[in-house]
Amino acid sequence: MTGNKKRILTGDRPTGRLHLGHYVGTLANRVKLQDNYDCFFLVADLHMLTTRTELERLRHTAENIRAVVLDNLSVGIDPNRSTYLLQSLVPQIAELQLIFSMLVTVPRLQRVPTLKEVMHDLEIEQPSMGLLSYPVLQAADILCVRANLVPVGKDQASHLEVTREIARRFNGLYGDTLPEPDTLIGEVPTLVGIDGQAKMSKSLDNAIYLSDDAKTVEQKVRGMFTDPNRVRADIPGRVEGNPVFIYHDAFNPNIEEVNDLKDRYRLGKVGDVEVKRKLATAINNFLEPIRQRRAELEQNPRIVEEVLTAGSERARQEADETLRMVKDAMGLNFLQ
Amino acid sequence: MTGNKKRILTGDRPTGRLHLGHYVGTLANRVKLQDNYDCFFLVADLHMLTTRTELERLRHTAENIRAVVLDNLSVGIDPNRSTYLLQSLVPQIAELQLIFSMLVTVPRLQRVPTLKEVMHDLEIEQPSMGLLSYPVLQAADILCVRANLVPVGKDQASHLEVTREIARRFNGLYGDTLPEPDTLIGEVPTLVGIDGQAKMSKSLDNAIYLSDDAKTVEQKVRGMFTDPNRVRADIPGRVEGNPVFIYHDAFNPNIEEVNDLKDRYRLGKVGDVEVKRKLATAINNFLEPIRQRRAELEQNPRIVEEVLTAGSERARQEADETLRMVKDAMGLNFLQ
Repeated sequence: MTGNKKRILTGDRPTGRLHLGHYVGTLANRVKLQDNYDCFFLVADLHMLTTRTELERLRHTAENIRAVVLDNLSVGIDPNRSTYLLQSLVPQIAELQLIFSMLVTVPRLQRVPTLKEVMHDLEIEQPSMGLLSYPVLQAADILCVRANLVPVGKDQASHLEVTREIARRFNGLYGDTLPEPDTLIGEVPTLVGIDGQAKMSKSLDNAIYLSDDAKTVEQKVRGMFTDPNRVRADIPGRVEGNPVFIYHDAFNPNIEEVNDLKDRYRLGKVGDVEVKRKLATAINNFLEPIRQRRAELEQNPRIVEEVLTAGSERARQEADETLRMVKDAMGLNFLQ
Repeated sequence: MTGNKKRILTGDRPTGRLHLGHYVGTLANRVKLQDNYDCFFLVADLHMLTTRTELERLRHTAENIRAVVLDNLSVGIDPNRSTYLLQSLVPQIAELQLIFSMLVTVPRLQRVPTLKEVMHDLEIEQPSMGLLSYPVLQAADILCVRANLVPVGKDQASHLEVTREIARRFNGLYGDTLPEPDTLIGEVPTLVGIDGQAKMSKSLDNAIYLSDDAKTVEQKVRGMFTDPNRVRADIPGRVEGNPVFIYHDAFNPNIEEVNDLKDRYRLGKVGDVEVKRKLATAINNFLEPIRQRRAELEQNPRIVEEVLTAGSERARQEADETLRMVKDAMGLNFLQ
């Protein structure tokens, strides 16, 4: 499984079903990464606690874990090639996080730009200790399997910087032990919501889910936001920035059809109904193999449990080795 | 071993051999606590990292762990009645600490008075994340075995307050799960150093160690600071605040002898030599059974390893139960 491939770690918080925005932003890339890297995918249930602790919001965690893993497997993450782990099933992550917390200062973490963003977005006045030390937990996730690369969007590079600093500081204090992982900066395109809002998101209720059935997709596409100035089909319409055409570009492989629709749209020679009907068909064609794969996977009702059990076991073995190396280097190995 | 006894947790950082100041301050009390409580004694090797991370200062950790446990056993901690655990051997502590870090805010921890004191004393300008979250780790230590009581000096009550708040917040969010431990506030007397400085301490090099042999004790007592105004034996001396008499009061059970020496000292009718000779004898008499017990214990060169292995195993069982209760209450129990 491993060979000489470089190792990647990335993951998701288990906050619910994944949608087309996730596919465009990360999943499509993940599926490709498997070919060239030894990939570890993390279900970050503990990270989730940094911004939600109310029982009401944790109630569906098991269901959400199942959804997020099944969505990943459905689009083509292959558990025989990649390792899927559940964060809370790898206690070494917590142990490393605790040790790493000694190697980074509070002011350093207070300067991480995403902290301020999250606090602003979620209207958090006083961050929890866990929220402030989020990047330390992330360092533990990444370094526990000694990942070499972490795929990130440009806005997340500051998080990884803390991981790199911790690895460097550790190696400086105790000798070369941990890899200093590099970012694998890629495009993390965002997808506009069906309501025309900047980003497809569960909380905005403007998403088409990977697990939506064909009827639901048709309905959602029928209700999509288009060019608000085009009140009749014979009025020339705007293609650029128009959600239906953004989706056509993203999911309709029939480029001739898309170009024809765009041309006629600009000239006021096609109705929204036709554009949307063809889009629904394209999206359903795109989702159909995903649905089939999901149906196959669901033949085994314990598939997610089995994948996470095996993956977390492999991760624990790696993390155990890392923790032993870390403790040995520090001389914290009495009886170990 | 347990019965219906209330449970206590307390511990030491493994920073070296223990001295008479430790005995007076905590060990004497610990030995008595064993009769009425189910005691857990923690060797806090991870806490140590909150103020020392340099390899040079960690080099002697194994040796220090051995010293601190052997000192405790020598004075009468009975591993058949009490549980002696090594913090880094109980991974559930790190897991609980991580979960608890989500339930306490950064400003709350910044207000803990001992943080400022430690930063001032050790000239730390920027606290590490680990130093700031010290009280959270302490909460994990205490709550992992669901301790009911924590013996503390008055100046440490603020630390336990964080533990109580975390337990309360957890129970409020997820239902009654964790005990809210009480302080067992006792006298934690400090012992003056042999140099007359306020406190006996390894770093001030003014300590008589529990493991010092008789000759070393005699030497140290001969060099003790007394009344600096008493340049000759026939000058009346001051007894109050005089280290030799403080030690006589603490370690010489022959009250008549002590009173006689005090009377003659005040009148200028006894030399320092006699006072010190009798003090050395008293301290050696006090240390002799401790030395004997140590010698017996050392017949088994792996005694410390065995005690910590068994104790950490018992602690892991308790902590595992606590962690399961915690995760069940939070709904974080997928596959667990």
